[in-house]
Amino acid sequence: MPERVVIVGVGLIGGSLGLALCGRRLAREVVGVDPNEENLRLALQAGAIHRAAGPEAARGAEVVVVATPVGTIPGVLEELRPHLAPGTVVTDTGSVKGPVVQAASRALPPEVGFVGGHPMAGSEHAGMVGADRYLFENAYYIITPTPETPDWAVARVAGMAEGVGARVVTMDPRHHDRLMAAVSHLPHLVAAALMSTVGRRPERDEMLALAAGGFRDTTRVAGSNPPLWEDIFRYNAPRLLEMLGLFRAELDLLEGYIRKGDGLAVRRYLEDAAAVRAALPARTKGYLPCQYEVVITVPDRPGIIGEVGTHLGRAGINISDIEILRVREGEGGTIRLAFADAASQERAVEVLLARGIQARKR
Amino acid sequence: MPERVVIVGVGLIGGSLGLALCGRRLAREVVGVDPNEENLRLALQAGAIHRAAGPEAARGAEVVVVATPVGTIPGVLEELRPHLAPGTVVTDTGSVKGPVVQAASRALPPEVGFVGGHPMAGSEHAGMVGADRYLFENAYYIITPTPETPDWAVARVAGMAEGVGARVVTMDPRHHDRLMAAVSHLPHLVAAALMSTVGRRPERDEMLALAAGGFRDTTRVAGSNPPLWEDIFRYNAPRLLEMLGLFRAELDLLEGYIRKGDGLAVRRYLEDAAAVRAALPARTKGYLPCQYEVVITVPDRPGIIGEVGTHLGRAGINISDIEILRVREGEGGTIRLAFADAASQERAVEVLLARGIQARKR
Repeated sequence: MPERVVIVGVGLIGGSLGLALCGRRLAREVVGVDPNEENLRLALQAGAIHRAAGPEAARGAEVVVVATPVGTIPGVLEELRPHLAPGTVVTDTGSVKGPVVQAASRALPPEVGFVGGHPMAGSEHAGMVGADRYLFENAYYIITPTPETPDWAVARVAGMAEGVGARVVTMDPRHHDRLMAAVSHLPHLVAAALMSTVGRRPERDEMLALAAGGFRDTTRVAGSNPPLWEDIFRYNAPRLLEMLGLFRAELDLLEGYIRKGDGLAVRRYLEDAAAVRAALPARTKGYLPCQYEVVITVPDRPGIIGEVGTHLGRAGINISDIEILRVREGEGGTIRLAFADAASQERAVEVLLARGIQARKR
Repeated sequence: MPERVVIVGVGLIGGSLGLALCGRRLAREVVGVDPNEENLRLALQAGAIHRAAGPEAARGAEVVVVATPVGTIPGVLEELRPHLAPGTVVTDTGSVKGPVVQAASRALPPEVGFVGGHPMAGSEHAGMVGADRYLFENAYYIITPTPETPDWAVARVAGMAEGVGARVVTMDPRHHDRLMAAVSHLPHLVAAALMSTVGRRPERDEMLALAAGGFRDTTRVAGSNPPLWEDIFRYNAPRLLEMLGLFRAELDLLEGYIRKGDGLAVRRYLEDAAAVRAALPARTKGYLPCQYEVVITVPDRPGIIGEVGTHLGRAGINISDIEILRVREGEGGTIRLAFADAASQERAVEVLLARGIQARKR
């Protein structure tokens, strides 16, 4: 167990890491460094750090985590340099890895181990206020050592990531940046462009009022943190522009089919896209995927969720997921429950039906 | 109250409409017409229809709802025609309105009132199995009468839509199609193209394995019903292609900024997109928006949701929304609760803290 972990930047990622490290006693001392006093106050209050300090706290620390926006990382590394002793590992949590790893190799002496890191976890709520002890649970945590990175440094960062519940994946920094350009940076760019396509129309307000779930989902990421994404687009520009070119070729293809009125080709295109989407691994909120669903129809009254949960809890059935789908105020609503296995799903329907609650498998 | 409502096509939309009409006794008799025997069996079993019949059931019905895919509607109208008597209203639920309204004016005699309709509600689960009595709760239900549509016909369809909990909006069919091209059809096309951009890469499997929430949200609609969307793209091609052109212009703009390395312009672009997104009306699952959030950290054990729900229910606090954010199996997890007002939010934190459950406002 490390004596001291220093977290520079106790926002969403740094704060969540602190909560997990402190909550599971994975370090004897977690120290927070942040120019934002409010972040430090919240982090202390929530138990995400044991104390606040300046960059000098890095001296003698086992791990220093730089959890600041990607564009600020080179500057932070420069600031930390005078306080870094041999045997300390520095890691970051930025979304682009190639340029950060290069900056680190220039800024840090070889006795200090640097391991690029990218925990793939997030929340719509930025800052310490969105921090969550379970943020990294089952999330991928990519680390990007180079041939020069010492093994002990890789092992220490991987150990920390696994300790907070993440699944460690190791890859080359440039390969990381190419993958992220496809599944993260391009979708972000596209969402912003879609949002502006609507935003610039004279019928904008009418369009927004009618925008349903599909539009909201497709553009959700367009709401997040512009300065952070400015940095990501700049740092990963070559890979992002390459992916954008490939995306444009797809638009050309589909547009051509629609213009020609070639319904069969349109349908095949959509079927292929749907097939790729179906190949996305099942999403999980914890260790187990929860795909055994039950839909229940219940009256709308205080305590109804408690009632449902209590019936199932008494029967020893664990609810893996719960979501209120729709409600009619004063009348009732529809709730989706999910369970880890078919047996729990089966039993849940029985238990709820026996209590007079309309329940069916889905 | 109508004596008889006939629903042609008891899938997701038709089935949900039947459940709401039967459940609230908004029609004396709901009759289902569907070539798919399984849909009819499920609909009867779930109480979505009183009986199954052929198209001749339309004779003398007050309302006939054609809830089949948009490409099949003209054919269904032809099939219904010999069975339609004066005074019956026919309405559809298709996602494109201009061509459907035109087809109806050709197919149906003037004594039969036709009112184009588009309930903006859906689910990832197609078919009767996804049907939900509360599907239309608080959803927009667009109706598109023309100057020729009789008032009594409009009033009857609007009354039915309001009865099942929807908010009726009236507009011109072509205007509807333009709005939907922007907020529904273009996002669908874009999601499919994004999906294929990844699907055609040699690193496809690695990319999909790492795809996080942003990618999943942005491409969610790409998973749905290809034949349905083939129809929508064909019927609304002119408006869709116009919007696609405007979207391409946005891509050009943003790409230009990134190529030039103009960080300030990129940031402004993303800020504008984020501002438009923030202008999206708050999403609701029922009558009230639920934006007063509380985040709780709880142990992972059967019955914990029941416990939380029971404590709040006993205190008379209604949970407007509940979502399990993340779980560490055997240790614990984070749950998001939402309430309709600030007072409930405040009280919920007090009640839960008094029971030793970590809770904080967000």
